[in-house]
Amino acid sequence: MARPGARVADSKKINSELFTLTYGALVSQLLKDYENAEDVNRQLDRMGYNIGVRIIEDFLARTSTARCTDMRDTAEKIQSAFKMYLGVNPTVTSWSAASDEFSLLFDQNPMTEFVELPDSCLSLKYCNLFCGIIRGACEMVQLEVTSWFVQDSLKGDPTTELRVKFVKKLEDAMPAGED
Amino acid sequence: MARPGARVADSKKINSELFTLTYGALVSQLLKDYENAEDVNRQLDRMGYNIGVRIIEDFLARTSTARCTDMRDTAEKIQSAFKMYLGVNPTVTSWSAASDEFSLLFDQNPMTEFVELPDSCLSLKYCNLFCGIIRGACEMVQLEVTSWFVQDSLKGDPTTELRVKFVKKLEDAMPAGED
Repeated sequence: MARPGARVADSKKINSELFTLTYGALVSQLLKDYENAEDVNRQLDRMGYNIGVRIIEDFLARTSTARCTDMRDTAEKIQSAFKMYLGVNPTVTSWSAASDEFSLLFDQNPMTEFVELPDSCLSLKYCNLFCGIIRGACEMVQLEVTSWFVQDSLKGDPTTELRVKFVKKLEDAMPAGED
Repeated sequence: MARPGARVADSKKINSELFTLTYGALVSQLLKDYENAEDVNRQLDRMGYNIGVRIIEDFLARTSTARCTDMRDTAEKIQSAFKMYLGVNPTVTSWSAASDEFSLLFDQNPMTEFVELPDSCLSLKYCNLFCGIIRGACEMVQLEVTSWFVQDSLKGDPTTELRVKFVKKLEDAMPAGED
């Protein structure tokens, strides 16, 4: 239902609570629709991907950012996007030796502000939308990454940790049959 | 999954685009799940109601507002809530003679920023969540209202108009069997 290439909206600054509660309604709906939490995780990732491929345009327009030179640059931009769209400032840390993999640590996460997971949902990755968004947004700037949660304070972990791993640079897409 | 009485979060100022796209994902999911647009409208209203009964606590804490004295006061507070949670400033207008019914006119609506309705969705009330939120939030302050869209710019109307009607004051709930 989205227009590709829709103009960037004026920046609307809002409080996050309505978003947080609406996201809760979305996750609840998916839990009703799908048989198990793994399917919900997959669906949240897929929805996030669709959001990511759209929101990147808004991010680029808003930040007038240049193409990332390396993964450290990418990490900084993902960090600033969390600030812009979610009002949080995750710490970038735990780089791999090859500088192709890092973690984002969330001391606070407005998305989980009113949330407690029932015991039946322990394999739910409540914020898996984020993984999809990062994947989708990076793909639009020719960067294939994978992204997954390694810790989740909703499940009693001391922090929430999201890992992002560089896979490969993507060539600009060519029509099938041409190369 | 929400803790009743959870503390009010620190105010997180965010841009509305991520919320807008996530809401789009929610509506799309409901359109997949339910047979027809009327059922989706009902479900959005129901979800909104659940959000409203929670968000009122945040609103009251944030605004230190006093009890509404009349519907004009209520209208002003609903208007300010739209500003706070959605970054828009709807016009309050079209009062009934008895001052028990008014309209909110939305010149802009970030929720529909990237949206075009396919012809198959012409009876969808895309923003019906709002009606439920108003109903739920008012109920928590002992005010029964009904709320519905009378115009929708997504469907080619010149503006988006949300109507709110006072039904009755609610008595503080008493345990069954006592009065």
